[in-house]
Amino acid sequence: MSSIAARLIPTWLRQYQLTALPTDLVAGLVVGVLVIPQSLGYAVLAGLPPVYGLYSAIVPVLVYAWLGSSNVQAVGPVAITAIMTASGLLPYAEQGTEQYALMASLLALMVGALLWIAGRLKLGWIMQFISRGVSAGFVSGAAVLIFVSQLKYLMAIPIAGSSLVGYLSTMQRYASQVHPLTLVIGIIAFVLLVANRYASQWVWRTWLSSSYAKWAERLFPLVLLGIAIVLSMLLHWNSLGVATIGRIPHGLPSFTLPHMTDLQEALKLLPTAGLMALIVFVSSSSVASTYARLRGESFDANHELTGLGLANLSGGLFQSFAVAGGFSRTAINADSGAKTPLASLVTVLVMIAALIAFSNALAPLPYALLGATIMASIIGLIDIATLKSAWQRDRLDGASFLAAFVGVLIFGLNTGLVIGLMVSFASLIWQSSKPHVAIVGQLGGTGHFRNINRHDVVTFDNLLMLRIDESLFFGNSESVHRRILNAMQQYPAAQEIILIMAAVNHIDLTAQEMLSTLNKELALQNKRLHFSFIKGPVMDIIGQTPLISELSGQVYLSTLDAVDALKDI
Amino acid sequence: MSSIAARLIPTWLRQYQLTALPTDLVAGLVVGVLVIPQSLGYAVLAGLPPVYGLYSAIVPVLVYAWLGSSNVQAVGPVAITAIMTASGLLPYAEQGTEQYALMASLLALMVGALLWIAGRLKLGWIMQFISRGVSAGFVSGAAVLIFVSQLKYLMAIPIAGSSLVGYLSTMQRYASQVHPLTLVIGIIAFVLLVANRYASQWVWRTWLSSSYAKWAERLFPLVLLGIAIVLSMLLHWNSLGVATIGRIPHGLPSFTLPHMTDLQEALKLLPTAGLMALIVFVSSSSVASTYARLRGESFDANHELTGLGLANLSGGLFQSFAVAGGFSRTAINADSGAKTPLASLVTVLVMIAALIAFSNALAPLPYALLGATIMASIIGLIDIATLKSAWQRDRLDGASFLAAFVGVLIFGLNTGLVIGLMVSFASLIWQSSKPHVAIVGQLGGTGHFRNINRHDVVTFDNLLMLRIDESLFFGNSESVHRRILNAMQQYPAAQEIILIMAAVNHIDLTAQEMLSTLNKELALQNKRLHFSFIKGPVMDIIGQTPLISELSGQVYLSTLDAVDALKDI
Repeated sequence: MSSIAARLIPTWLRQYQLTALPTDLVAGLVVGVLVIPQSLGYAVLAGLPPVYGLYSAIVPVLVYAWLGSSNVQAVGPVAITAIMTASGLLPYAEQGTEQYALMASLLALMVGALLWIAGRLKLGWIMQFISRGVSAGFVSGAAVLIFVSQLKYLMAIPIAGSSLVGYLSTMQRYASQVHPLTLVIGIIAFVLLVANRYASQWVWRTWLSSSYAKWAERLFPLVLLGIAIVLSMLLHWNSLGVATIGRIPHGLPSFTLPHMTDLQEALKLLPTAGLMALIVFVSSSSVASTYARLRGESFDANHELTGLGLANLSGGLFQSFAVAGGFSRTAINADSGAKTPLASLVTVLVMIAALIAFSNALAPLPYALLGATIMASIIGLIDIATLKSAWQRDRLDGASFLAAFVGVLIFGLNTGLVIGLMVSFASLIWQSSKPHVAIVGQLGGTGHFRNINRHDVVTFDNLLMLRIDESLFFGNSESVHRRILNAMQQYPAAQEIILIMAAVNHIDLTAQEMLSTLNKELALQNKRLHFSFIKGPVMDIIGQTPLISELSGQVYLSTLDAVDALKDI
Repeated sequence: MSSIAARLIPTWLRQYQLTALPTDLVAGLVVGVLVIPQSLGYAVLAGLPPVYGLYSAIVPVLVYAWLGSSNVQAVGPVAITAIMTASGLLPYAEQGTEQYALMASLLALMVGALLWIAGRLKLGWIMQFISRGVSAGFVSGAAVLIFVSQLKYLMAIPIAGSSLVGYLSTMQRYASQVHPLTLVIGIIAFVLLVANRYASQWVWRTWLSSSYAKWAERLFPLVLLGIAIVLSMLLHWNSLGVATIGRIPHGLPSFTLPHMTDLQEALKLLPTAGLMALIVFVSSSSVASTYARLRGESFDANHELTGLGLANLSGGLFQSFAVAGGFSRTAINADSGAKTPLASLVTVLVMIAALIAFSNALAPLPYALLGATIMASIIGLIDIATLKSAWQRDRLDGASFLAAFVGVLIFGLNTGLVIGLMVSFASLIWQSSKPHVAIVGQLGGTGHFRNINRHDVVTFDNLLMLRIDESLFFGNSESVHRRILNAMQQYPAAQEIILIMAAVNHIDLTAQEMLSTLNKELALQNKRLHFSFIKGPVMDIIGQTPLISELSGQVYLSTLDAVDALKDI
């Protein structure tokens, strides 16, 4: 095969084994049919007409099947990208306008570009940037916001805002205008969906075997939607004031370039795009790596970044909003027997069929049903179990969870995520901000130097030897500085201060400036600062800096050299 | 003395030595007179009438003199708090309105409350949160924004925005409306002030001794302001269209409670207040700790937090905007011989005198002079030297500088600071994301275990012993996971995996979950996971968790115990 064809045709397709075909076909069909209601709902959650949910499940899914890292991950519109789109665009465009849809695609394009660049720069390690506590807290807070935002469709009132406070205050303002029939329909649907999901052991498992019960549970939302469509037509809900989604535009998503006239607007979206890219990557790679491990495949974070990036980039050019790997749709895909991304291609065909053949059929569906579907499915994302275990197993991670969770509810998604990240970094810095600094002495005539509190060692009146047991960086340089000054107060006679740097793997600029300051302070007291045992890579960095050229003392290869040279001064 | 009186009267006052009185008086007087132009300018920069600059130099200064941590630090309005106030309030109130002034004070109150709470919680270590690169990049970016924003007064056009893009685009829009006379006055003042500052070795030092030249340089801006006032009166600049500051309201700042009717507005200001509190604390404590070291005094970060907190809290109740320790005013204070906070009390008296006696005298001063004063003084804050040295001495710190700098220019102060912090944390995580994991073997019959690549050691076919050389946290748990799986692929025969935890000081929730996952993955392959040498504090945390209760293997006190128990299975 020519190398161009080899590059164009993905490995899984070149090595495709026909034995996988039947299960791939079934899985793709099942996922395609089951995720239609969700896709419509997430588009509405993102502030877009329902059809955009189907659009978003076409081009990005094709591209990910072609270039993505995972064989079974099903990408598509998910709740978190939908609500981040809605809250990110809130200040800049009005929902329902053409400008809004263009900006949603622009956002997907920017998210894709950032992910792709990150992949080229091999920033896959950045996935480790978000601690378990922060991601669970963020997702839980977002789930609460999503839940409350969907009350808009159950109550048929215009709830808007970017935080819980915003939602609740607009809800209160319009409380008197609730549409009773819509509310009844929505509540019934919600109760049935929740019962289906959380009481399935009583509902389905009493008369079905376990594997049938699982499928009954999965199919039920679709059946309920069908029933609602029929009832809506028969009872003329629309004429009774129940908002229905109406005719879905016929046909496929078209190629659309974003208006680039207003660069400033795009710049304003950049922080949102950055945070969305982070969340898309972290959640997708958690799904993909879990399934890769289950299937004994390897997971390449940089490959995943590139695949997600190109999926979103291309999606942004075809009327899609930002997509990610979804846990539930991937679970259905894998459970249904998907072996390769061919399943995703079948899913795309289902979406295309829905757009071409069935788009009129969905018209009588009330928005309240979509709202109830999302509310019922989102409850599972409120992750109290992780908060509990974080609190028991690592109090600081619990604090990060709460910071992200409460931050999202009070300040909205972006600020909440940033607050959560800040708290998790703060706890990281707090943990390493007090490194061990030991005063050491010579172990009887040997070249070994040990902590004077633990060993019987020889000290010298004019020497103070300090061993620094951690890399030096902005988070601990002040603490180390203080410890050195304290040690000098304990041993005021010492004229020569020797810092033993054997355990220091890195010295950043803040710490270099601290050591320069220390050097000057010692000089004022007619004391000298020496280093011993500086590691090669550290010396490479600091060798050419003022820290070394202005040092009052010397740099010694070993502590023994330093002691021999200085003890008799 | 009774204990109440002892608590009410600060230590420096109870122990006051009359020998310090003359220099304290002189220093206070000098600072008071010299900072008047700056104070007026910073108020204007903050979007407030000039008089608020004098207000902000009264109550907070009194409170800091009473309760602050530093003997010589001069607190007051500074450029950074002024521009953060302006950009923080931009979306919520219109400059020049009463509502705006109230919100500026509310912001000071919130900053003060946050600082005070941080002091009570002993969060002084958080000062180490901001690396040298980030703070220099942020301040440099803010300085550029301040410089550009002041063109508003030199060109007499309404420049507004929160980022460089915003400023430049409004500037372009109004470019045709520039007022020529104002521009000429402003440029002449700016050129004279810059020459005074950066060419003083040619200007003053040619005919004055070094110490007189220093004072000539410091007094010159005040003299220039006096000349401008006289020219403005004589030439009737005001009637020629030059905007002058007009009559300053007579009298002292009054007690004003913020309107608390709109809690949501206060909540929206909270992120800005949090970032301002961080910047106020970091910059003030850098000033205070520098001078404490120069004077051989100790510096207590938590005391500094409390003092700054109460200064801003009380200031917020008396028409002040947020204040911080200023480097230039502290330098003047210390150079003029200030020994105790009594100097600051004298400064306050100068401000009160200015408000009561000279407020009419300032009326003819053109805004352009204030703008030029700020532009000339702000240039020094653009810290290219630190960028250069960061780039040479620690590439990652250079990246943090650039991220904060460019972030501030493009996205504004808050977002820019957050971006800078994120980049500095990312580089921190990157550095510790690939910890050393060594495959070890037994050193000939001893209880010592060493790296198989460096030592001649005994290994056992069914055992894989891995030493983890770093604490485990979210930033490195995936890397460690991958290294362990790689090591297992190298030694497929090993059935018992022993992780030696002697160097692990902490395991956070993310890492605990990683180890749990690893345990399950090994169980699927009929392999067992064991730990040896878990430190006491770590065992206290993980002992009660599923990680230990579901462990397929055992926890051994020492690696030797593990090997003896497992090698012959």
